[in-house]
Amino acid sequence: MEHRNLIAVLCLISAFILPINAELKYVDASRLTLIGKVMPTPENVYHRVDTVKYNDMPFQVKRLFTHSAGLVVSFKTNSPTVAARWTTKGKGVMGNVTPICDRGLDLYMNDGGKWIPVGAGTPSAGKAEQERVITKNLKPGVHRFLLYLPLFEEVRSLEIGVDEESFIEAEPSPFRHTVLMYGSSILHGACASRSGLAYPARMSRNTGINFVNYGLSGNGKMEAAVADMLKDIDADAFILDCMPNPSPEEITERTQYLVNTIRKYHQGTPIIMIETYMRENGYSDQAVHDRCTRQGEAFVKQYELLKKQGIKDLYLIRDNHAIGTDHEGSVDGTHPNDLGFDRMVEQYQPQIMRILKKYGIK
Amino acid sequence: MEHRNLIAVLCLISAFILPINAELKYVDASRLTLIGKVMPTPENVYHRVDTVKYNDMPFQVKRLFTHSAGLVVSFKTNSPTVAARWTTKGKGVMGNVTPICDRGLDLYMNDGGKWIPVGAGTPSAGKAEQERVITKNLKPGVHRFLLYLPLFEEVRSLEIGVDEESFIEAEPSPFRHTVLMYGSSILHGACASRSGLAYPARMSRNTGINFVNYGLSGNGKMEAAVADMLKDIDADAFILDCMPNPSPEEITERTQYLVNTIRKYHQGTPIIMIETYMRENGYSDQAVHDRCTRQGEAFVKQYELLKKQGIKDLYLIRDNHAIGTDHEGSVDGTHPNDLGFDRMVEQYQPQIMRILKKYGIK
Repeated sequence: MEHRNLIAVLCLISAFILPINAELKYVDASRLTLIGKVMPTPENVYHRVDTVKYNDMPFQVKRLFTHSAGLVVSFKTNSPTVAARWTTKGKGVMGNVTPICDRGLDLYMNDGGKWIPVGAGTPSAGKAEQERVITKNLKPGVHRFLLYLPLFEEVRSLEIGVDEESFIEAEPSPFRHTVLMYGSSILHGACASRSGLAYPARMSRNTGINFVNYGLSGNGKMEAAVADMLKDIDADAFILDCMPNPSPEEITERTQYLVNTIRKYHQGTPIIMIETYMRENGYSDQAVHDRCTRQGEAFVKQYELLKKQGIKDLYLIRDNHAIGTDHEGSVDGTHPNDLGFDRMVEQYQPQIMRILKKYGIK
Repeated sequence: MEHRNLIAVLCLISAFILPINAELKYVDASRLTLIGKVMPTPENVYHRVDTVKYNDMPFQVKRLFTHSAGLVVSFKTNSPTVAARWTTKGKGVMGNVTPICDRGLDLYMNDGGKWIPVGAGTPSAGKAEQERVITKNLKPGVHRFLLYLPLFEEVRSLEIGVDEESFIEAEPSPFRHTVLMYGSSILHGACASRSGLAYPARMSRNTGINFVNYGLSGNGKMEAAVADMLKDIDADAFILDCMPNPSPEEITERTQYLVNTIRKYHQGTPIIMIETYMRENGYSDQAVHDRCTRQGEAFVKQYELLKKQGIKDLYLIRDNHAIGTDHEGSVDGTHPNDLGFDRMVEQYQPQIMRILKKYGIK
């Protein structure tokens, strides 16, 4: 009862502070430019992977690929207001992320060549359907926008609203090339406070390179069926940030098939392996410390074996306390917070860009 | 129905990954040391203010003072496991913060003189009662802990669990002096990812000074009844971070009474006014920009008037883009994320400490 009261109060507050303009018109976001996809997904345009075609992947992997992590709508409008109506499959909450990150929207506007966040679509509790004015009172003129979709939900529908007398049009992606990133919940975006702060999203805005998010919360385990899907992707580079989820034994068993499969179908394309930092709770929990240490050893050993076998264009980014040394860069002992992600970007991005530059990806 | 299924799944997952040790014993946290309080609160030890005694304050102010923001339990134990059972008044969710911040717990351990976070108490969805193992597998020895309470909820009960054969004892507060901070949601802790990352909490661990959190989400409006309550508080310094909530007109009407009341009852005690940064959505929303500008002008003008009137020991910290200049330091356009808080601490803390030092508060 109390929960329901809270929902009612939140809805009232939302209605009060975010009045939906009756004069808005809505367009289906699928008619605009959708960035972050590297294959068609007939079942739902907001899926990352065609899970019907790649049906052999584990159930949880397929479910997570229906999440819209890393998908971004690119458009321009002269409207002083931008609103959205959207529906997600789930309406629950996760304990360690904000609902904005989980089921909400994150709007950036180009301001003199720089992308700045101008409003979040904060979801109401207990509802799958949302409607929000995300930004308003913009100065006159045509503005370019990037709307980041939810990180941990399947989006069922999305419409973007502008003032009735304004225009809204698809805008080309501002990002070049395709760098496919496959990996863990950290890559997926847990626990950024909003979707535009996931680390591939930050690196894309920083560099202009299209870093595609194939993060799978808890499930970046390098299964053979996932490797077989990745080989079909036409990417300029592959980044593997998948050390945290598989056991040390699974890392030993699976890394070679993953790397060799990508290499076989993409000769001359760089493959970058990222060694994950020690989990923050590994500094106190001795069992976690031991597991992380063994995962890291197994991952680095597989890299060295692959190099010895003559695999070319393979790189390893070693961990150097990627989320900082003050121990404040994590939400829950496992996942970075926005401070941790900021430090990760600072550490990873220049190393990644140095490698990509050798291949003309710049 | 779907929501209920999700809750069931989350509970199952929690039960699986966090088995509660049957051999734990629990002690009531109120028998340990409770830091962050500056007055007795007979109604509930986890309130910040005695809202029965100070009954004239607005309803929302009194409600928010029942939140346990800034309260910390200090204890030591030789247990390799630390668990908690706790109950909050509400069980809902806020759109812009994590449930960990809202209703959860945040445990720090002293590691060679430094406080490091060692585990979060992540609440289950839709429940007011929680039980969690927060850290485990600690190396042998006696460890000192700080357990940060929820930022946005009233705590109804709290017990700390340790292994049955271990001891748990109250540990004195590691923090000196009392610096009372009164203000907005930003001070309250929105939108830190967990309670130990609210900026007064960070400054306390950094400096050893007890910064007491009287932040009131949306309600740090300098009402006369609040000023009349603050005058009774025996603090070594007062910091007023209350620019964001009152209108420019309210700032003009209320600042003098607040400062003069504190000054009258606390001669020679420093009072520091903090000018809040431009809201991030003020860089796009012209109406927000105008309001923030007028709030800042009113706040600074009141400071200057008070100085002209001869009020001594009064200081102003001017804003210098406190949450950074890349526009990524906010969750929702208003509240800092952990990155924004990190930058705020970097900017505010040295300025505050320079002032406090003049008064022997160091």
